[in-house]
Amino acid sequence: MMDPPADSSSIDSPLANSGSIQCPRPMSDYPRVVMAHGGGGRMTQELLEHVFLRALDNPALNEREDAALLKPMHGRWAFSTDAYVVQPLFFPGGCIGDLAIHGTVNDLAMRGAKPLAISAAFILEEGLDIETLKSIVDAMATAAKRVGVSVVAGDTKVVEKGHGDGCYIATSGIGEVREGIDLSIRHAKPGDAIVINGNLGDHGMAILSHRAGMQFASPIVSDTAPLYELVAAMLGTCPEVRCLRDPTRGGAAAALYEIASAAKVGIELDEAAIPVHAAVHSACELFGLDPLAVANEGKVIAIVPDGSVDRVLHAMKSHQLGQYATRIGRVVADASHRVVMRTRLGTVRMIPIPVGEQLPRIC
Amino acid sequence: MMDPPADSSSIDSPLANSGSIQCPRPMSDYPRVVMAHGGGGRMTQELLEHVFLRALDNPALNEREDAALLKPMHGRWAFSTDAYVVQPLFFPGGCIGDLAIHGTVNDLAMRGAKPLAISAAFILEEGLDIETLKSIVDAMATAAKRVGVSVVAGDTKVVEKGHGDGCYIATSGIGEVREGIDLSIRHAKPGDAIVINGNLGDHGMAILSHRAGMQFASPIVSDTAPLYELVAAMLGTCPEVRCLRDPTRGGAAAALYEIASAAKVGIELDEAAIPVHAAVHSACELFGLDPLAVANEGKVIAIVPDGSVDRVLHAMKSHQLGQYATRIGRVVADASHRVVMRTRLGTVRMIPIPVGEQLPRIC
Repeated sequence: MMDPPADSSSIDSPLANSGSIQCPRPMSDYPRVVMAHGGGGRMTQELLEHVFLRALDNPALNEREDAALLKPMHGRWAFSTDAYVVQPLFFPGGCIGDLAIHGTVNDLAMRGAKPLAISAAFILEEGLDIETLKSIVDAMATAAKRVGVSVVAGDTKVVEKGHGDGCYIATSGIGEVREGIDLSIRHAKPGDAIVINGNLGDHGMAILSHRAGMQFASPIVSDTAPLYELVAAMLGTCPEVRCLRDPTRGGAAAALYEIASAAKVGIELDEAAIPVHAAVHSACELFGLDPLAVANEGKVIAIVPDGSVDRVLHAMKSHQLGQYATRIGRVVADASHRVVMRTRLGTVRMIPIPVGEQLPRIC
Repeated sequence: MMDPPADSSSIDSPLANSGSIQCPRPMSDYPRVVMAHGGGGRMTQELLEHVFLRALDNPALNEREDAALLKPMHGRWAFSTDAYVVQPLFFPGGCIGDLAIHGTVNDLAMRGAKPLAISAAFILEEGLDIETLKSIVDAMATAAKRVGVSVVAGDTKVVEKGHGDGCYIATSGIGEVREGIDLSIRHAKPGDAIVINGNLGDHGMAILSHRAGMQFASPIVSDTAPLYELVAAMLGTCPEVRCLRDPTRGGAAAALYEIASAAKVGIELDEAAIPVHAAVHSACELFGLDPLAVANEGKVIAIVPDGSVDRVLHAMKSHQLGQYATRIGRVVADASHRVVMRTRLGTVRMIPIPVGEQLPRIC
């Protein structure tokens, strides 16, 4: 912390006494974020100490330099970024804080990269309760600790009341890529199997039903979770996995269309094999949504050679986040790069390409 | 680009025809950002192609994977992040786009790190003109090209009209630290000299006078610029530089107080040596601001051993951004870690610690 100005009786100090700049009250006297918290002066430092460093404490961040300095990495590395604007800030199963950590960890994991360092940039709205901000930052700290990664760099800006939604967060992450791993959505091949680690649509429907004030017999809870450990188990057993994709915005449909397009293949899903929580299924029916197009925040779609499926599923099931892992379809040759569903009745229907916004602001 | 759905006459495709999801009009029919551009579906892909990939084109970004995969680095690396919420989005001398690139490049440069890769996360407000967004992204591309760095990862979210200010950007950067360089604000020592590469206060006063609609005989233009090349010239000649700091929010005063506090020293500036553009000086007098507390976006404060000053200044002056480099003061022993000014009259006055927000939303 910056030292307060010492007794200035011995020096000529007109500005310090001018009244235009005064010592701030202690942090506890500001229950809400004010514009001055974004000004780069002492109040920014106070917010840094009382909210951010308190929770995210680590040597690189504590140095308070313009950039964190980090140890050499070996081999290839991955770099990813995401902005988070989810509303509400707190939802069943998580909040914008852990979501922002998990999301960036997961984007790295999809390239087979172990998260090494995360940065977090905050855009706070004037008036946000400091206690709310503390809860968000605490959730980030807990999520980062669970993954064994540190938030080593950060920034905070404040915008006037009405020009934000409490808190937006942008996280970026750096990860070290496991040796011998070469995951790319271009690598999917006809004949490959498609597996997933559990139910589809939980995150999006948790947010939507929470917003709508709906209650179900069994509550819908976001699946937000960090996937690196699960991915490490999968790649440890089966380094020949072709690619991984986390089906977030746009859901599994968007992720599968991206794979189909990049690898120039088709995708065929088995309707009977798609795992969807009963409450999510009901909620989707109510809202007229397809669970395949609803966002997930703790799911990974893996494309694996057909002969490796059993090993991959076994590895997935050994991890808590993979206990409901299952095969949901296959990669096929299709010059039109479609994603289709083989229904329970044996017919085939095309899955539409998600176009726009079924559920705004879900991450 | 994702392929459009092919003729679906041969398959049962109820959802594709349900009317709830329709093919979007071509991009050109959307002159403004709509919520669907943030939905992760085809419209997000269109925005990505028509606006982002068009300008920022590079192999890592073009891969469109969840994270960019990058070549091995050697040695230590630096990681930094910043959020940008400047208003207006365009100002004399720059815009939020080049500012976001320069800011992150400069934070890396302050650790002696050569920028290798940048990520950019956008939070767009519904209704933003696509042409405005294109201009911002084009400015980012030009700025990145000038520095020789690529934007390798990105994300776009859209918030409802009224919940943003057109465009917020968070950039993160990774840089490789020059060998043999160890810059830290803790390293300043009594007897060291303080140098700067030019006039103070240009950025903040450019924004403020633009907002106020003021005109001066010579217009005030932001100094936003990338400092890595200048820093490389300085460190090439004088690797013993103790530390570098870019005096952004809070101005030189905040930067110098951070150095004084971290290194447990005092700072003494020479009033007659502080370079301030005449128009900035006038504007500061009008608004009652101290140029020392006004933000810069293309300035570097360097603390150097006294015996190295001439070499450092010579190296700085050989670079366009350092042609007005000058010595502005010295590090002194002071148990109270004050920043003081030796005035033209020979008296000493204390520089106040910037507390809050003189000029909101300047970066």
